Amino acid sequence: MAVYTDVAADELAAFLARYDIGDLLSYKGIAEGVENSNFLLHTTAGSFFLTLYEKRTSLDDLPFVLGLMSHLARHGIACPQPVLTRAGETLGTLAGRPAAIIDFLEGVWPRKPTAVHCAGIGEALAKMHLAGRDFALRRPNPLTVGNWRPLFDQAADRADGLQHGLHDLIADELDHLEATWPGNLPDGVIHADAFPDNVLFLGDRLSGLIDFGLACNDTFAYDVAICLNAWCFEPDHAFNVTKASAFLNAYQRQRNLSRAEQDALPLLARGAALRIMLTRLVDWFNVPPGALVKPKDPLEYVRKLRFHQSVTTMRDYGVISMDDRA
Amino acid sequence: MAVYTDVAADELAAFLARYDIGDLLSYKGIAEGVENSNFLLHTTAGSFFLTLYEKRTSLDDLPFVLGLMSHLARHGIACPQPVLTRAGETLGTLAGRPAAIIDFLEGVWPRKPTAVHCAGIGEALAKMHLAGRDFALRRPNPLTVGNWRPLFDQAADRADGLQHGLHDLIADELDHLEATWPGNLPDGVIHADAFPDNVLFLGDRLSGLIDFGLACNDTFAYDVAICLNAWCFEPDHAFNVTKASAFLNAYQRQRNLSRAEQDALPLLARGAALRIMLTRLVDWFNVPPGALVKPKDPLEYVRKLRFHQSVTTMRDYGVISMDDRA
Repeated sequence: MAVYTDVAADELAAFLARYDIGDLLSYKGIAEGVENSNFLLHTTAGSFFLTLYEKRTSLDDLPFVLGLMSHLARHGIACPQPVLTRAGETLGTLAGRPAAIIDFLEGVWPRKPTAVHCAGIGEALAKMHLAGRDFALRRPNPLTVGNWRPLFDQAADRADGLQHGLHDLIADELDHLEATWPGNLPDGVIHADAFPDNVLFLGDRLSGLIDFGLACNDTFAYDVAICLNAWCFEPDHAFNVTKASAFLNAYQRQRNLSRAEQDALPLLARGAALRIMLTRLVDWFNVPPGALVKPKDPLEYVRKLRFHQSVTTMRDYGVISMDDRA
Repeated sequence: MAVYTDVAADELAAFLARYDIGDLLSYKGIAEGVENSNFLLHTTAGSFFLTLYEKRTSLDDLPFVLGLMSHLARHGIACPQPVLTRAGETLGTLAGRPAAIIDFLEGVWPRKPTAVHCAGIGEALAKMHLAGRDFALRRPNPLTVGNWRPLFDQAADRADGLQHGLHDLIADELDHLEATWPGNLPDGVIHADAFPDNVLFLGDRLSGLIDFGLACNDTFAYDVAICLNAWCFEPDHAFNVTKASAFLNAYQRQRNLSRAEQDALPLLARGAALRIMLTRLVDWFNVPPGALVKPKDPLEYVRKLRFHQSVTTMRDYGVISMDDRA
């Protein structure tokens, strides 16, 4: 729910005058996104999305994020494209904030993803991984395994207050992941946040990947692991092997997971579950009383983590592995 | 900043199937409105506004509010029109809430109103007063003079903590207004909340009055008094006689204020200022710590009230009264 900065119409009109996107008809602050102020613009040329980057977004990351969207869109990925000013720039200043305009993509995000949606994100994620290969800029993952312990430190004291035994569960898992995290899997540009609310569909057809704010360079299979967690569990947190199979098979039709990636997937999925649990845990203990943003439940990911701890092969994820096929 | 209720795409699609407004392309929760959940819809037929009425909105008031918008739009007033279902209904149920779809009006609300904008709202308000005359439904003003003391009672104890002497200022004013409030001025349907954020412009042209949630039956000149307070003061709370003159003259070109209305205007403007101050004061003391909605400053209206207390004739509002012209 986010409009941290309001924009006056005359300021916005002056900002838009730098672009070739027609005259302003309306703009509405969007109750979406946690970190930035977002507006849906209507102009005489169509619909656009305006983002004002608030303080938590590092200005240093914007060239990567905006450049990646341009790169991916040029390579046929359905994602919003930054609109260039007449001077060829993607980033300007509005109301004292770094600001960018991107295409507005039609589509709705699936509140109740089906196996068809899961296949859609599987295909799109693999295509994105392939299309990002020759993107020139680099951004290390700010939320990779080495950054999880500081998150835990912020919440460790209070973890057992949320669920008895949570502290030790996380501590043990963190020890294990830090000791065994794979370092040599194929890597490149990953979305890192391809949850259902960042993937738009028109009916069963995926119409766009959005919100590249956490995109970075990391292991491709880790991005797969994030999606396994985000798409392939039911509202009661039970694993849905049909959805996982649809997701992984669709991914592999575009980009085959190597034997090493397949072997590592259960561990990477444990890591993805822990990462999401930790950021949710920190948010959980830092919500101001009475805030309108309802924090997401960290315990959802306790149950997902426990599932992945029980997985031994891709077969448990509904996929006949290369090894099995041989 | 308001999306209290999220809506799933399939629920929304089923809801839209009752209307003839094409297929759903996208919907975004709007960070606007305090009481209800609002969404901007794109369909293959255009843009629409979806409101889910939350608990604070009385279901009993919706026929008045929606019926008034239909009535005014039919009578040439630029305002959103409720979209009818194929069965001819304006109100349905979505996500367990009463819900309605209205036209989306292009336009931006003036963050820094000019005299031209003030003339625009003056003309539109008068036309709305005339167009509402034969509207059949009635809704008493829930925020009229008789309802102000209960508001004061909620905040009286703490008023002096905000500004020394505020308690007695309000108490004295309330006594005076309750004793002298006029009862026989021309009345009809008023907007009652035509602040700049509820009036859209495209350039200098008014494109629409929106948000009829507080519309009701009351004295026309009281609606004028609300706008005088909302449009004709500078950000430093100084009265701008040029804007007031533009507003009042534009109003009077459509609907002449009677001698009795003119004489009562300073008193009505004091009442409007006190009413706004009181609701802001109640909100001020009831904001949960850390809430994202920043309460509006009640003290802005202390200064406006003091100005109106000093006014004796329409001349002080920049208007040559009929009496002066005679």
